[in-house]
Amino acid sequence: MALLQQQNYETLNEASAAELAKKLNLFHKDAELTTAEIGDGNLNLVFRVEDRLSGRSVIIKQALPYAKVVGESWPLTLKRAKIEADALKLFKELAPEFVPEVYFSDETFAITVMEDLSHLSIARKGLIQGEEYPLISKHLGEYLAKTLFFTSDFGTKPSDKKELVKKFINPELCKITEDLIFTDPFFDSETNSFEEELRDEVKKLWADEKVKLEAALLKQSFLTEAECLLHGDLHTGSVFASKTETKIIDPEFAFYGPAGFDLGQVIANLLFQAISCESKQESIFSHIRTFWETFTAEYSRLWADSNMEPYSKTEGYLEKVLKKYFKDTTGFAGCELIRRTIGLAHVADLDGISDQSKRITAKIKTLNLGKKLIVSREQIGNIDELISNVKDSL
Amino acid sequence: MALLQQQNYETLNEASAAELAKKLNLFHKDAELTTAEIGDGNLNLVFRVEDRLSGRSVIIKQALPYAKVVGESWPLTLKRAKIEADALKLFKELAPEFVPEVYFSDETFAITVMEDLSHLSIARKGLIQGEEYPLISKHLGEYLAKTLFFTSDFGTKPSDKKELVKKFINPELCKITEDLIFTDPFFDSETNSFEEELRDEVKKLWADEKVKLEAALLKQSFLTEAECLLHGDLHTGSVFASKTETKIIDPEFAFYGPAGFDLGQVIANLLFQAISCESKQESIFSHIRTFWETFTAEYSRLWADSNMEPYSKTEGYLEKVLKKYFKDTTGFAGCELIRRTIGLAHVADLDGISDQSKRITAKIKTLNLGKKLIVSREQIGNIDELISNVKDSL
Repeated sequence: MALLQQQNYETLNEASAAELAKKLNLFHKDAELTTAEIGDGNLNLVFRVEDRLSGRSVIIKQALPYAKVVGESWPLTLKRAKIEADALKLFKELAPEFVPEVYFSDETFAITVMEDLSHLSIARKGLIQGEEYPLISKHLGEYLAKTLFFTSDFGTKPSDKKELVKKFINPELCKITEDLIFTDPFFDSETNSFEEELRDEVKKLWADEKVKLEAALLKQSFLTEAECLLHGDLHTGSVFASKTETKIIDPEFAFYGPAGFDLGQVIANLLFQAISCESKQESIFSHIRTFWETFTAEYSRLWADSNMEPYSKTEGYLEKVLKKYFKDTTGFAGCELIRRTIGLAHVADLDGISDQSKRITAKIKTLNLGKKLIVSREQIGNIDELISNVKDSL
Repeated sequence: MALLQQQNYETLNEASAAELAKKLNLFHKDAELTTAEIGDGNLNLVFRVEDRLSGRSVIIKQALPYAKVVGESWPLTLKRAKIEADALKLFKELAPEFVPEVYFSDETFAITVMEDLSHLSIARKGLIQGEEYPLISKHLGEYLAKTLFFTSDFGTKPSDKKELVKKFINPELCKITEDLIFTDPFFDSETNSFEEELRDEVKKLWADEKVKLEAALLKQSFLTEAECLLHGDLHTGSVFASKTETKIIDPEFAFYGPAGFDLGQVIANLLFQAISCESKQESIFSHIRTFWETFTAEYSRLWADSNMEPYSKTEGYLEKVLKKYFKDTTGFAGCELIRRTIGLAHVADLDGISDQSKRITAKIKTLNLGKKLIVSREQIGNIDELISNVKDSL
């Protein structure tokens, strides 16, 4: 990047971040810039650069060459910044209303300069605090219908899709998912983290060959089924929201995988709210229903209007595809429920339940629901049956 | 390639092929080389370079920038030569006894210099002429167990596998398969080629929504399921054989796809022999049984000894994987039977039946068997049931 003095990767500071923003002509020449580092420092530096005169602001995100999770630190490829910037740009083309704009990106410095979304809040935090986002489920359904359809062999030419598969090969970040979602929670692995009161339940899981076989098959699907370009980490912490707007950020885990993985993560992360707060259950179930119905309606519309596959008019094909997506969604949601309860990375929805006994009860329910979704995914035929399975577990 | 004078692609001739072999030090300095172009000229030039003194010989294969099939000509990427050379080298590491050695390859010139297999014959031709290859089915089963296992997420680290997926992205040659095997034969497409006497049967196929739905799902599997590095074109014309030896050549269609595709092509291409020559049926059925049993035995042995997946010891996992492979194999074999009967590229086994009425009858049987294998692949549970389905169709 000729815009900065250095030739090799170096972390930005507030001064060099402001200098970069200026050189990119993102502000008026008389702008009075103030810069603040606002990231949580685990994986990335995040600078907010604002012009005090105009109020205009941008975000500069820089990947760090290591990850810190629960005090542990391991090296992590900087290439993820390029994957993230490339994915944001592509998703922006496909679903512009739900993706921040990227103004500039640089692979060497692992930098993405993008639209500031500070007027929105992170959906997980907002939901925990009792905020309501009436449109979030509709927006997530639309976003996924568009991104999953137009990156698949139905919505793009198979030869172009193969070049995208190549571009988004993402071994290191996929490995995190393969280990932390699909493997470690089902074995007595060092990365697991759970309260001692859960040990008996966790041991039952580790000994449950039926659940493990189905988890193995879901992992195999994640490893092999290059259906669409996924966000890859679409939990409520990757969503900025307000009452009217929804923006999906942080697609550094993007890669070609099974559609149900993104869909299942959305549903599981909404479910944590239903599990942790009884009074919200009906509202969350309604969101989950809206999410799935919007997704299928929009996906079906795109299938009818924009499908380039000669078989797309073949009787029953769309239904088969949606049925497969739903089955996968159910199973992947189950994996997410389990790993967020006993694996390395938890969610504040559950860990934040201050009453110890209620928290343990909620986590046991989460584990059992996770197992049920994994093993019964062939039998759970539609979104209403999924919700009634959830109700039976709570 | 500094070994030749030119900087850019240029076709070899007999003189420059001999010059290249010399420069590569593949022969003694006093060798007396004779060169002959022995290819069929459709896709590649093939030079055989021999030292009259020692009898030693090598093959120099050069990709041409176009393909000729049934008089049509279209441009075709030279990159396929690199894919082929890379695949040969990898398959040679994994199953050395069944793959020719590559001495040299060059991407710019689209050249692969390799072991001469002239002492063997092309299995399709040999089988049609009544040759017997008692070990061919055992060898093909072993070859596929090794190459499919060790290139999958079970036999190689998932992160290394992803680099291989990237290396073997092969859009142009995959498109040939997507069109000519999975699409065109099921629609009234210009590329199709069949005798007028078959038109009624073909029209029935084009109108059969049930077969088309299942063909669509098999195509989708081919497009998305990156299970293993496939040969991608493993018919009996890609196999050199004798009574004791089997070598698999021409993997220019190599890419990451579903295991059942290679397995199904082997079975379908053996079936053409059973369909075209009644007296060989029991021998061919025995080959097919041996092929599948060898494959599953060897694959199971590799699974037990070399599987790096933590779930590999999970009860029932191997059985699930083999069951999935078998189902796919059955369906893909069905697609191959159909496309070789009415699609663009035929097989000499069927077209060579000189009696018109017998030929048409054989082709109708092939079509119907193909449809049956496609739609019944969930129900056909094992290799004996597959063979009895074949018997019922003949």
